[in-house]
Amino acid sequence: MKIVCSKQNLVNGVSIVSKAVPNNTTMNILECILINASKDSITLTANDMDLGIETMIEGETIIEGSIAIEAKMLSDVVRKLPDDDITIETNIDFETTISCGELVFRISSKPGDDFTGIPSIEKNDTISVSMLTLKDIISKTIFSIGSGDVNRIMAGAHLIIKNDQMRITTLDGHRISIRKVQLKNIYPEKDVIVPGKALSEISKIIPFDADKDVSISLTNTHALFEFDTTVVVSRLIDGNYISVDKMMSSDYETKVTVSKKNLFDCVDRSLLFSKEGNKKPIVIEINDTMMNLSVKSSLGSMNEKIDVKKQGKDIRIGFNPKFILDVLKVMDEEEIDMYFVNSKAPLYIKDASESYVYMVLPVNLS
Amino acid sequence: MKIVCSKQNLVNGVSIVSKAVPNNTTMNILECILINASKDSITLTANDMDLGIETMIEGETIIEGSIAIEAKMLSDVVRKLPDDDITIETNIDFETTISCGELVFRISSKPGDDFTGIPSIEKNDTISVSMLTLKDIISKTIFSIGSGDVNRIMAGAHLIIKNDQMRITTLDGHRISIRKVQLKNIYPEKDVIVPGKALSEISKIIPFDADKDVSISLTNTHALFEFDTTVVVSRLIDGNYISVDKMMSSDYETKVTVSKKNLFDCVDRSLLFSKEGNKKPIVIEINDTMMNLSVKSSLGSMNEKIDVKKQGKDIRIGFNPKFILDVLKVMDEEEIDMYFVNSKAPLYIKDASESYVYMVLPVNLS
Repeated sequence: MKIVCSKQNLVNGVSIVSKAVPNNTTMNILECILINASKDSITLTANDMDLGIETMIEGETIIEGSIAIEAKMLSDVVRKLPDDDITIETNIDFETTISCGELVFRISSKPGDDFTGIPSIEKNDTISVSMLTLKDIISKTIFSIGSGDVNRIMAGAHLIIKNDQMRITTLDGHRISIRKVQLKNIYPEKDVIVPGKALSEISKIIPFDADKDVSISLTNTHALFEFDTTVVVSRLIDGNYISVDKMMSSDYETKVTVSKKNLFDCVDRSLLFSKEGNKKPIVIEINDTMMNLSVKSSLGSMNEKIDVKKQGKDIRIGFNPKFILDVLKVMDEEEIDMYFVNSKAPLYIKDASESYVYMVLPVNLS
Repeated sequence: MKIVCSKQNLVNGVSIVSKAVPNNTTMNILECILINASKDSITLTANDMDLGIETMIEGETIIEGSIAIEAKMLSDVVRKLPDDDITIETNIDFETTISCGELVFRISSKPGDDFTGIPSIEKNDTISVSMLTLKDIISKTIFSIGSGDVNRIMAGAHLIIKNDQMRITTLDGHRISIRKVQLKNIYPEKDVIVPGKALSEISKIIPFDADKDVSISLTNTHALFEFDTTVVVSRLIDGNYISVDKMMSSDYETKVTVSKKNLFDCVDRSLLFSKEGNKKPIVIEINDTMMNLSVKSSLGSMNEKIDVKKQGKDIRIGFNPKFILDVLKVMDEEEIDMYFVNSKAPLYIKDASESYVYMVLPVNLS
């Protein structure tokens, strides 16, 4: 195999597919990136058997062929290359030479045939969503995904396509995040559980581009995401997701409208006294037009008052401050609405049209 | 005690004195920052008994007094404060209230009397040097300071004042760094060993300012550095420094002039194959006008050629690439001169006037 391509194309491609290289594996070949050079194209592939990423890079194939190179070494080498045309060439002993001008690297590689490529997925009812929208909806729900230790379903995000709506739900036993977006077309109904790791890596490699689309194909076993010259295939989590719709009551006793920044700064400060091994709830007391937030631990105490708009009853309720902060971090809105029922019932943060709903369970205040 | 000052002044002051707070100590009081409020001034002090830093901050003293607050907590709290006027007040139980508008923090503190302030140093023959110059000369020599495990002298930098010249020397058994600067006046001769830790922290807190001076006073036991409203006192290391002048031969068999950037990039790349547990030397071969650099380890190999200007013999010599890189990192020059004798003798990198001299020992090539 012999190819020539620019350093930048190589760096971009390696950086994209590296997201599917597992950190710990007993199978050496999975730690590799496959370079496949055919007459028409050069592709890079990584595949940890759950998540596979393939991307095409611009360049010239001089001799067709394919080799697998240890991903970490390839990534380190290409980033240190001069910004110029790079030649990658393999001899019959699978020693690979990466060269540029007067610089020559020699590293070992494996035959490309040892590498398991990404599975081919049947494309049916392909859904289009803009890159920016998909990136956004993932990043605004992924934080409350569970570890899967208690229930493996929770390690996935619930992706539902219904008519012209896409909905992502994540939950971890203490909180639920739901985001909905409008699609440009009406699609047949789909209901799948995508592993959190796959969504998280996808959101990292999708460019910030509102004008270009990601195509999503969903089968019973796999999800396929295509954008630019990149293809991502993820195995789905088998099973039925926890039904959250019944938990989504719209009754409330107290509605509070508050400046996101003021609340964020205050909850952020409260973390000073609520560190690992010293976890204390933040106590929110709402009286008339004032929200009083306080935390007290062996490290010290904090007390702060914020102006709010209130409808309904006064309330006193406690939360894990980190859970509140996680929601506020992903809010673009300057003002947010908080809905309370009583001190034992969940807090809802949502907009009027319920394009987003965040639920956080309170902690018991003794 | 009760004081009022701006958040910014408080943050800056705490950040400066924090450099003298020890990371690990059995004496709780050393982990504190002393706030001392008198009618005329507010000072912050930290002191780990080897290094003491005191800085005056602008603000208003409402009630005189002094308290000691755990440095980490104080630093965390002040950075999280809103950008506004801050009130710090202590009650008779040494509970400290830090407040700002509707925000109140309460943390515990200790009586200021428990705290050992920085020693008072006699100021004699005070040396003036611009902030920028001192910062520069420290940062360009500190990297080759020894650990002090083998020889405690090596954990210090040799600071010599002679006539109108200041010289700093550091060494660690594998290499020597020497930098000289011209002072504006002639001073009585001084010869002291300043702990590396003190110099390193000083270089971090001195502002980048070529127009303002640092005043240095040296006694037999202490060094005193004064700049802006900050005073740093460091205990000196007792003993005689290793005499390096005899090692500084100016004979050479090969002189090479090379682009610093080209050499830096190449040596940096070679580190890919010379990682922990895989330490291999970089082999430099100079033939005519070409410098060939190569490294070979179980991870792979690299080979690169760089154009150079050469006087004298061809040579083949090996080095720990990190030691070469450390020198190149602190070079402002676009071209550097390298002086070799033979493959067993040290490499010197120096300028014509010897305002800097870096010596690196070679490694044996089998």
